[in-house]
Amino acid sequence: MNFCSNCGSPIAIKTPPGDHLPRFVCEQCGSIHYKNPLLVLGCVPEWEGRILLCRRAIEPRRGFWTVPAGFMENGETMQQAAARECHEEALARVEVGSLLAVVSVTHAHQVHVMFRSTLITPEFAPGPESLEVKLVTEDEVPWEELAFPSGEFTLRRYFADRAQGREDHHFTELQRRHRIEP
Amino acid sequence: MNFCSNCGSPIAIKTPPGDHLPRFVCEQCGSIHYKNPLLVLGCVPEWEGRILLCRRAIEPRRGFWTVPAGFMENGETMQQAAARECHEEALARVEVGSLLAVVSVTHAHQVHVMFRSTLITPEFAPGPESLEVKLVTEDEVPWEELAFPSGEFTLRRYFADRAQGREDHHFTELQRRHRIEP
Repeated sequence: MNFCSNCGSPIAIKTPPGDHLPRFVCEQCGSIHYKNPLLVLGCVPEWEGRILLCRRAIEPRRGFWTVPAGFMENGETMQQAAARECHEEALARVEVGSLLAVVSVTHAHQVHVMFRSTLITPEFAPGPESLEVKLVTEDEVPWEELAFPSGEFTLRRYFADRAQGREDHHFTELQRRHRIEP
Repeated sequence: MNFCSNCGSPIAIKTPPGDHLPRFVCEQCGSIHYKNPLLVLGCVPEWEGRILLCRRAIEPRRGFWTVPAGFMENGETMQQAAARECHEEALARVEVGSLLAVVSVTHAHQVHVMFRSTLITPEFAPGPESLEVKLVTEDEVPWEELAFPSGEFTLRRYFADRAQGREDHHFTELQRRHRIEP
């Protein structure tokens, strides 16, 4: 941030009175521009025991596999965001189920929230952000070709819970280049 | 948003190629400025069966009661944000426990995430944003003087779960002037 989005004046970085962190402050109009974590919403879509994965057509991590997920928009709930992302990336309609994973990606200023979901029909195809979309069994998950650690954490917990007949939710914090323990 | 925070040029509102929603776009430098939901983190701090409430010293809803909560900052986890807000507003140290409530406040572009927590010691006092902080029993909760519907939803579910010996989590979407069913 270089300029005030309200008045267009150059911005300063300083801690406002009564605050405890440096902020982007406009000394011309007095606006304070806060930067806060972004929510990424996604789901693990299931159909008859298999789950739907997308191969990314865009950077970052083009060509790698991911669960359908993306930035939450204003005006929607978490569940609506998860379903919308699944439709955009995999042209698939899901019913969103229980909460599965909450991943703080602190270095990226993001929180990834993942739900279980069920495909309403077994129809899907690559959306504009995907090269390929497919249903896979647990044995077929391309663990070495997953795009993001949060997706790997999500899938590991999904299968571990499923094996035990549970639907728990799981918190974790992921640092840069974090390795997920299976 | 009137000006580009990157280059200071006037901003336009248009749907970028490949996108499906209007965004704040700079036609000078090409920056797209997304607006996304903000996370508000809070907790219900408990000590020997009573819970800690704060009476707000600031607007909005100055003079009304709330659970300690506030905007999540970059670089912290949800649980760290909930504990920090409790320390700022009530000068109290808590151990954050299970997830309690996730409230989509869609009209305000916010998601409120509330946890159960336990006071580490029964020490507390008003922080700069609070007029008063006190431990109350369920019967003493000032239901008619609560600041926010998300706080009322959180407290209703907290006590209902506690009465059943459960620690569930609860999703809801709150519209403007929503009434919470006890």
